[in-house]
Amino acid sequence: MGRTADTAARLRQAIAAGTYPVGARLPSLRSLAEQWRVSINTVVAAYRQLEREGRISPLPRLGFRVVPPRQPPPPPLHLPAPTLVDLADLLRSAEMREDGPVPLGVAIPRPELLPLTALRRCLLAAQRAHPDACLAYDVAPGQRAAREAIARRLLARGAAADPEQIVITHGAQEGLQLVLRAICAAGACVAVATPAYPGFLQAMASQGLAAIGVPSSPATGISLPLLAQALERHPIAAVLLSSTWQNPDGATMPTAARRDLVALCRRHQVPLIDDDTYGELAHDASHEPLCLAEAHGGLVVHIGSFSKCIAPGLRLGFVVAGRWTDAVVRHKIAVNVATAVAPQLAVAQFLDSGAFDRHRRQHAARLGGIVQRCAAAVLAAFPPGTQVTRPRGGFVLWVTLPATIDAQRLAVAARRAGIGIAPGPLFAPDGGFRHHIRLTAGWWDPVIANAIATVGNLAKRMA
Amino acid sequence: MGRTADTAARLRQAIAAGTYPVGARLPSLRSLAEQWRVSINTVVAAYRQLEREGRISPLPRLGFRVVPPRQPPPPPLHLPAPTLVDLADLLRSAEMREDGPVPLGVAIPRPELLPLTALRRCLLAAQRAHPDACLAYDVAPGQRAAREAIARRLLARGAAADPEQIVITHGAQEGLQLVLRAICAAGACVAVATPAYPGFLQAMASQGLAAIGVPSSPATGISLPLLAQALERHPIAAVLLSSTWQNPDGATMPTAARRDLVALCRRHQVPLIDDDTYGELAHDASHEPLCLAEAHGGLVVHIGSFSKCIAPGLRLGFVVAGRWTDAVVRHKIAVNVATAVAPQLAVAQFLDSGAFDRHRRQHAARLGGIVQRCAAAVLAAFPPGTQVTRPRGGFVLWVTLPATIDAQRLAVAARRAGIGIAPGPLFAPDGGFRHHIRLTAGWWDPVIANAIATVGNLAKRMA
Repeated sequence: MGRTADTAARLRQAIAAGTYPVGARLPSLRSLAEQWRVSINTVVAAYRQLEREGRISPLPRLGFRVVPPRQPPPPPLHLPAPTLVDLADLLRSAEMREDGPVPLGVAIPRPELLPLTALRRCLLAAQRAHPDACLAYDVAPGQRAAREAIARRLLARGAAADPEQIVITHGAQEGLQLVLRAICAAGACVAVATPAYPGFLQAMASQGLAAIGVPSSPATGISLPLLAQALERHPIAAVLLSSTWQNPDGATMPTAARRDLVALCRRHQVPLIDDDTYGELAHDASHEPLCLAEAHGGLVVHIGSFSKCIAPGLRLGFVVAGRWTDAVVRHKIAVNVATAVAPQLAVAQFLDSGAFDRHRRQHAARLGGIVQRCAAAVLAAFPPGTQVTRPRGGFVLWVTLPATIDAQRLAVAARRAGIGIAPGPLFAPDGGFRHHIRLTAGWWDPVIANAIATVGNLAKRMA
Repeated sequence: MGRTADTAARLRQAIAAGTYPVGARLPSLRSLAEQWRVSINTVVAAYRQLEREGRISPLPRLGFRVVPPRQPPPPPLHLPAPTLVDLADLLRSAEMREDGPVPLGVAIPRPELLPLTALRRCLLAAQRAHPDACLAYDVAPGQRAAREAIARRLLARGAAADPEQIVITHGAQEGLQLVLRAICAAGACVAVATPAYPGFLQAMASQGLAAIGVPSSPATGISLPLLAQALERHPIAAVLLSSTWQNPDGATMPTAARRDLVALCRRHQVPLIDDDTYGELAHDASHEPLCLAEAHGGLVVHIGSFSKCIAPGLRLGFVVAGRWTDAVVRHKIAVNVATAVAPQLAVAQFLDSGAFDRHRRQHAARLGGIVQRCAAAVLAAFPPGTQVTRPRGGFVLWVTLPATIDAQRLAVAARRAGIGIAPGPLFAPDGGFRHHIRLTAGWWDPVIANAIATVGNLAKRMA
């Protein structure tokens, strides 16, 4: 048995490394047995094991070929009850603070991939051109130049947005907070696509909102039939999701589904909050259509960020707030008056100069390669039965572990080994996703490869 | 009558300009009549008018001398009922957005008084020394270097604060928001010293909190007997005030009153939130004792800002959060993850270099002169019966108009003349202070002098 497991693992690695890419025919039983100095029976057993895992399939005549990895199963087709979000310390400790020396748990872009030199140039230029304005109070909704540059960018992506409805914020997270405040009374219920970005749940928790998790699938995003059910059964104040490269499951909604989603929200007159934090990170640099483009009458609120595609330290994001613009501005003033001026002017210049688009293409392509390598490494290292998303945008992987493995226990063990991972329950309003983890796939080097292998081994021991 | 009014106005101006300082003897009836070519009866009538206004008093034998301006009357000695704060659009339009070309309505420090050159040097140094960190995510509670520099500064002012309990925020306003979230459930009642900074009321409104206004006097700050009454009668979740150079009334609590205030809060186990935004702006550069220094057991939450004494555009403040530190950090993460790094490092260097202290002394002295000139100009220009504070710190004046003048109407008229002023109802949770205005006294030049004269004339026409 040890020999079979070894041989199967070696095969998995060879497949993951691309030695045998998807579609390739595997060596015959005899030749592999000779190459690897094992018995033919061992090779047969190992091939059967991989067949059970869905990695390879028998050819019509003889031998096996590599097949594409299985997609995770569709989410459970039922709607949970609304729960008041209360994540307390779990989020803070697990997500943000005690990440290991190898941070696979937080979705922070690596500085090596960011356009920091060009950006620093824009920052210095802004400070030189407007020395006093850069140290004076700005007033919400923010610098006109930045709001216009953002409107031009959205237009290039197919959505017309009035600069008057754009409010500059300290990142997308602040945008979400302001929007939830503008839309929801305390105790109101928000329908959120699950698995959900923990920041969504934190924002709801900090405002005393209830959440109803509506299952999302990596292939098509939020389940529209279940969302319709939720809207009929509960007094939903808003629908919250990311329609493009959703964190953590990488879901991107097909165009028709976006249209149906906006129509559904309009029918119920419920605002749709679309967090586009990863929207600029398609690995082929293409543009998905924006829900905002489907909006008429300001029912779609679009949240944007420059933290993942330009630099997180700018603390710069924005909201296209539609009919809630006045309320969002009022809350922005109440929360922290305004956003610093220099980053706004720098990003406006960066967006308009063409440098952003050049950076984005390069960045996206590099990310794509990294994400595929990380996903392959996960498949190679984790126990049989593990499934992983293969997103074509963003840089996080959603891993479904065999049902015997508890994600929180795995996270604790990984942290002891110096590796941060994000356990599934962080992504649910009600402690679900107990056999899931999110891994950051934003970089590839021996340290990362080794960390993935280590977590995989820990998982194997728990399986 | 016209002659008497003219002569009285001329006298007021001469007193305000310091031609006849406090304590000086005024010219005899005869000599003034000769100097100004009016009848002795006119001089008698004008002197009587100024006597009624409390500007001069008869000497034991003969003639008149200039007396210090009357303090505003003590606030009404009753406690209003708690009201849910709902300021809606009034705040936004009047306070922040539609201030006139001459902004006497917003308390923004003039760039001419700020150490912008030195600060820019610190910012560039921080960006050069830590180029990547300055564009990367920080994590709440913020940069250790900044928290330590702030702790050293507080220690120099007499209060020991643990850097572990200091959380960096986007200005004092964000600090207050986070603290209120950490301490108060929705609908909770906060006792706030009135007149209150509109940002206090905005923060409460945006969180659905109720306020009970506890009268404050410019001489001694919040009324402790009335606060005690409020604490006994109502379930108060927190007490909110500025114990030093309170905005708008310039109140600074005597040392004994501070001690009593902290003891009262401790007795009721109610947290005291002390907003120290203007605390560094004593005109004689002295230091008032901090309530924080009286705190044992973390019941005093201290909010600080660098917007008024260094530069508002940094968007940098902090909270010493005591026993609420963990909750404040959690809410900070939920609200916008963290604060930009460069301003933190720049301010840490500026504080530690000694440049801050040198700037502060200069700045305070200049402000003191400006504030006194503005106050004198108000007394000279506004109708008889007007009273104005003479704060020894900060740069705002609280003006009590004759009861016939409606502050909101005056604000509308002033705005039409291109001048922003802040009407009293902005400073009350329940629409009080209808005959008060706040004027910014942060600069002195012919434009400001002219604006004060214009508003004074508008007020006279309404009187």
